[in-house]
Amino acid sequence: CGAGDGGSSAAAEHPLSGFQLQSVLRESARDKTIFLHGKVSCKEQSADAVVILERAPFQADAVSRLLGNNPEPKLQLKNDIYSVYHLNPPPELNEVKATVIHPATEKHIKKYMRQELYLIQETGEDYRNITLPFIESQSFSIQWVYNILEKKAEEDRIVHENPDQEVGFILLPDFKWNQKQVDDLYLIAICHKRGIKSLRDLNGDHLPLLKNVLQEGQEAILKQYGVQGNHLRIYLHYQPSYYHLHVHFVALGHEAPGITVERAHLLSDVIQNLEMDSQYYSKRTLTYTLRSDEPLLQKFKEAGRC
Amino acid sequence: CGAGDGGSSAAAEHPLSGFQLQSVLRESARDKTIFLHGKVSCKEQSADAVVILERAPFQADAVSRLLGNNPEPKLQLKNDIYSVYHLNPPPELNEVKATVIHPATEKHIKKYMRQELYLIQETGEDYRNITLPFIESQSFSIQWVYNILEKKAEEDRIVHENPDQEVGFILLPDFKWNQKQVDDLYLIAICHKRGIKSLRDLNGDHLPLLKNVLQEGQEAILKQYGVQGNHLRIYLHYQPSYYHLHVHFVALGHEAPGITVERAHLLSDVIQNLEMDSQYYSKRTLTYTLRSDEPLLQKFKEAGRC
Repeated sequence: CGAGDGGSSAAAEHPLSGFQLQSVLRESARDKTIFLHGKVSCKEQSADAVVILERAPFQADAVSRLLGNNPEPKLQLKNDIYSVYHLNPPPELNEVKATVIHPATEKHIKKYMRQELYLIQETGEDYRNITLPFIESQSFSIQWVYNILEKKAEEDRIVHENPDQEVGFILLPDFKWNQKQVDDLYLIAICHKRGIKSLRDLNGDHLPLLKNVLQEGQEAILKQYGVQGNHLRIYLHYQPSYYHLHVHFVALGHEAPGITVERAHLLSDVIQNLEMDSQYYSKRTLTYTLRSDEPLLQKFKEAGRC
Repeated sequence: CGAGDGGSSAAAEHPLSGFQLQSVLRESARDKTIFLHGKVSCKEQSADAVVILERAPFQADAVSRLLGNNPEPKLQLKNDIYSVYHLNPPPELNEVKATVIHPATEKHIKKYMRQELYLIQETGEDYRNITLPFIESQSFSIQWVYNILEKKAEEDRIVHENPDQEVGFILLPDFKWNQKQVDDLYLIAICHKRGIKSLRDLNGDHLPLLKNVLQEGQEAILKQYGVQGNHLRIYLHYQPSYYHLHVHFVALGHEAPGITVERAHLLSDVIQNLEMDSQYYSKRTLTYTLRSDEPLLQKFKEAGRC
């Protein structure tokens, strides 16, 4: 059962049908998203799972069918020229995306739980004394990143590759994007070079890599999707969600999560900063948010730095 | 037919079924919303209509039904513990809200029309050659700001004041905040000193002012609302919406508009940058977004800089 065994029984193919809801971790009425924690049972064993449900964006070309093929719209209110109806379109016009993490660890479950936020002002010294030892102690697995770089997974999703091990990268659509419309275009460039954990490891030697990602990434997106560079927000996260250098390419009009000033760093700014000072990111105080349940916050508290 | 006549025919009750799509005015993949312009025909007459479709948020108590009562989930991808499925739940679990404006005027249609966004990379030279002359030619009125500073308006809303004309400021709630809960706390610090139009005019001489706003602003908010500095996002906008120096103090968990990386500049970063280089903001290339209908965009286009 579940994701791991590759079995051919119905249960193996549908971990969702054996899902027993334990709790709602978080929900967003604005985003039409809900994060669930539950158990998936199989052969008297039971494992935790996180399921993220998200309704599909509307597709312009399906809208007429949606309005036309509807059972009776239900009038909710009417005032002058304004009225509100509820429609219940048929299943084929109503897709829900379910992202399943199974088996899920305690960390996966915590990641999606709503938490109080704290602003951290991390000096270069804080990074070396608190953050770096923490990252190294955690041994976060990035096997899935290496699977992509080594073409062991998702090879068919690659949009562009420059195979150079110093300045090269693989560009592919982010899981968050269904690739049906460019309004919420979202791609990730994953660098071939290993060992660059984050912004903090960047120095002037990485300028050719960064400039190459910026230039070639924009060119590939223009060629593949017809979207020009001045319609893209191109940025890195600090803290990143995984410690292997990657860059986000997102449609400018799309309010993706993680584009806020205390999380996102524009690639063009990163390049400017390193041109100004090759050691900029080892010295700079960087501001970011941590949730109350994150172990790194505890480390900052223990050090009296939060 | 339509919303106005109160008739009892089927057409009168369902203007949506006679809706002929003309164009998609705007869509938001994140919000699962789409704004449509179309015609509703009736008795050989035809009137404009705007229809806004929005998918329903998930309801926690319906989620188990949604996962259980599904036809075969379709596996989209699988990598290690992560998998993605598409579900097509039955109509009763898939509501769409349709807001109808009918008959709609030209103004309704324009209101919902999406403006294309452009990313501007404004060099120091661009600022002096394009942006500054544009700002000066517009003579934006900031009389309302002077009214606040001179206590001719909104005096009863002041939360804190330091009356010093060099480093002082007035702190008051932003109009966007209803002051009923601190989750979306939003205050503005308006500096007493005049003539600082934006970030671009700041230099090392302004460090005492900026540090004072940061320190005293946080203290006043802690005293008045019990919210600590590490739960606040404190930033300036570039471009600002008015050209008199002001600083935003917003609850960290509140996703206010204008906190994105290409619009917001953390006050702590501004201070660091000026400490590093007193002339930082007169030289730096600053990135921001302009909508296609903004006159400043036209100036950048005329100068061949966009």
